[in-house]
Amino acid sequence: MTVLQEKTYQPFTEESVLVYLEQKGFIKDRKEADCKEVGDGNLNYVFIVRDNTTDRSIVVKQALPYAKVVGESWPLSLDRARIERQALQEAAKHVPHLVPEVYDYDDTFAITVMEDLSDYVILRKGLIEGNRYVNLAEHIGRYLAETLFHSSDEALGPVEKKKLARQFVNPDLCDITEKLVFTDPYFNAESNSYAETLEETVNELWQDDALLFEVAKLKKQFLTEGEALLHGDLHTGSVFVTSGETKVIDPEFAFFGPAGFDAGAFLANLTLNFIAQQERSSEGDRQEISAYLLEAIEQTWAVFEQRYRELLKEHAVEERYKSDEYADYIVKKIWQDTLGFAGCKTIRRIIGLAHVEDIDGIEDDESRLRAQKRAIETGRHLIFNRQQWQSPSDWTAYLKELVQP
Amino acid sequence: MTVLQEKTYQPFTEESVLVYLEQKGFIKDRKEADCKEVGDGNLNYVFIVRDNTTDRSIVVKQALPYAKVVGESWPLSLDRARIERQALQEAAKHVPHLVPEVYDYDDTFAITVMEDLSDYVILRKGLIEGNRYVNLAEHIGRYLAETLFHSSDEALGPVEKKKLARQFVNPDLCDITEKLVFTDPYFNAESNSYAETLEETVNELWQDDALLFEVAKLKKQFLTEGEALLHGDLHTGSVFVTSGETKVIDPEFAFFGPAGFDAGAFLANLTLNFIAQQERSSEGDRQEISAYLLEAIEQTWAVFEQRYRELLKEHAVEERYKSDEYADYIVKKIWQDTLGFAGCKTIRRIIGLAHVEDIDGIEDDESRLRAQKRAIETGRHLIFNRQQWQSPSDWTAYLKELVQP
Repeated sequence: MTVLQEKTYQPFTEESVLVYLEQKGFIKDRKEADCKEVGDGNLNYVFIVRDNTTDRSIVVKQALPYAKVVGESWPLSLDRARIERQALQEAAKHVPHLVPEVYDYDDTFAITVMEDLSDYVILRKGLIEGNRYVNLAEHIGRYLAETLFHSSDEALGPVEKKKLARQFVNPDLCDITEKLVFTDPYFNAESNSYAETLEETVNELWQDDALLFEVAKLKKQFLTEGEALLHGDLHTGSVFVTSGETKVIDPEFAFFGPAGFDAGAFLANLTLNFIAQQERSSEGDRQEISAYLLEAIEQTWAVFEQRYRELLKEHAVEERYKSDEYADYIVKKIWQDTLGFAGCKTIRRIIGLAHVEDIDGIEDDESRLRAQKRAIETGRHLIFNRQQWQSPSDWTAYLKELVQP
Repeated sequence: MTVLQEKTYQPFTEESVLVYLEQKGFIKDRKEADCKEVGDGNLNYVFIVRDNTTDRSIVVKQALPYAKVVGESWPLSLDRARIERQALQEAAKHVPHLVPEVYDYDDTFAITVMEDLSDYVILRKGLIEGNRYVNLAEHIGRYLAETLFHSSDEALGPVEKKKLARQFVNPDLCDITEKLVFTDPYFNAESNSYAETLEETVNELWQDDALLFEVAKLKKQFLTEGEALLHGDLHTGSVFVTSGETKVIDPEFAFFGPAGFDAGAFLANLTLNFIAQQERSSEGDRQEISAYLLEAIEQTWAVFEQRYRELLKEHAVEERYKSDEYADYIVKKIWQDTLGFAGCKTIRRIIGLAHVEDIDGIEDDESRLRAQKRAIETGRHLIFNRQQWQSPSDWTAYLKELVQP
């Protein structure tokens, strides 16, 4: 197979993956193994390989040198495969149970060989179906606290932190976030995508100079504040779940940014699901599902905050970082940033390029429009109130009020 | 010469510098040239080479793999030679008249071949002697605006900015600043150095939890906010002057940090000189020298601010960055950070490891002690008032009040 002799990048096929894995010793005999590409093919290949002699399966993920977005091809650095893999490995140092295990990698081919999670479902899909995951908030709160703290200056000291940060400079993928989250949704950009019935609401938002200015401030934070190694795209489509287990996947957007960005992304997606469920779930289930989602928002933050404070006290490299006063300051900053970024993340999912199935999949036009308007309004409130809302209960109180009949 | 054959790092000698320059074609015949090492030998060698056939001279600066500080040897990455050289080259794109010209470099030997500035004097020395430099504020204000703006996200866009920032990750030298400016002066650290007569004042400062907390916040900004490519050590010892010309030298501490740090360093050092001049200058000269220094503080900022606003309007990559509202926001942030960092810079020069000759050279013990106490008090006020003082006139008004007889 030329692919392995030449050692230059080329997209794998189901056949060449098996050759590669045989040579690497992951499978004994490729004739006794099956390989199936299951990725959406927009950004990456995802091959699931099953060794029929052992019945064990593994995943080979390969980055493609472009992103297919709205039919166009957007060139993307293959280096993101390395970044994704290293981000998984960093997380595995602190929360190995919450990320897929990395078995091997090859940066030339931009591939990572890792744990197969075929038994899991995508959290977004599970939530849309109205399922509840009892450990989700505990797991994500913990994931956030551990990954964010352990990559901060307070945990690593500034020298080690800078050496780590140097490995996660990620211009291409940050550029996508900057455009799709902080820029395009706030003017008449070609990439935007929203229903005609929403036009008046969107135009109103574009006229709101105060909002645009707050978003510009949040964008500046995203561009300049290198507080911690972020997942960078922690929506509910980047989380795999079973009834009791949780795995955070796909950190190819990882970079050193403001710590509140990941929490903001996750809580924004719970919020979008909450808004969608008002239209989706049957009247009988609605109350229970809503209560679960609101509790998940509150509990995720509570677990994060408690653990982050513990980590500061136990593991910070300087005495002064261990005081309650310093912890109050850090946690408050992350909280306010979480609200602001959650607001941006909520709005972009309605106006910008990539929507969420939670909302888009609502069949009835009127219901969907109501959900879209509520999401935009919630985004505005999150952004404007980020210095006023003191805790997640302010957030959930707002949501309860929002959906009052 | 083995040095040139082997192409591995070794410290140059006056002789090997000549061999090197001859091979590189900078001098025709090394027997017709003189070479003299004039550096202080603590961090770098500085060779001045004169070609006697042309009477032209150049400088060869070489980084040494250690820093000699208080007799101890502190290992330091040679990569700082590359960083310094690239920072000079970046500055030369926008303010070529304000930096020494780089003729050549060799990263293996950690050397830069550059313009000889033997006709210039170090600004600190000139100011101590009571000299005035009519173009200084204009030049430094301009230097700050151009270098800070042109390396910002607003000027470069986030992708180019990240690619540039990646080249200026500078863990070793940032670590020195973090220790000596933000950490050690605020507790009983071994590196500190201050007179016994100052002990009560210093102890008082260490008990001031509110101050320590503000310094921790400023340190966090220094650690995490990558707004612009900084000089990183812009005190008056890093500026060369003639009566009309100004050159900013020695940016080996360059990295992407908060934009107010450079302005803070420079204005802190003018402030220290102002305080020192109350003790140093004769009564006849004092008023004029003081007025010059206060005007230099105000004018440096005024030039910086005006030019920075122009640059945003003319060259920002996004429309929203060109609004007055955004400029107000950016300039205000840089201003508040400038005050805070100036405060830290002022205090560290009294309590910390590296003092300034302006103050230390005051011969009379009582006078020197008064200057030291005033410097610490000024530092405190700069830090505590950084959100209250609206403009440089608040700063200079404070200084005038401080030295009232």
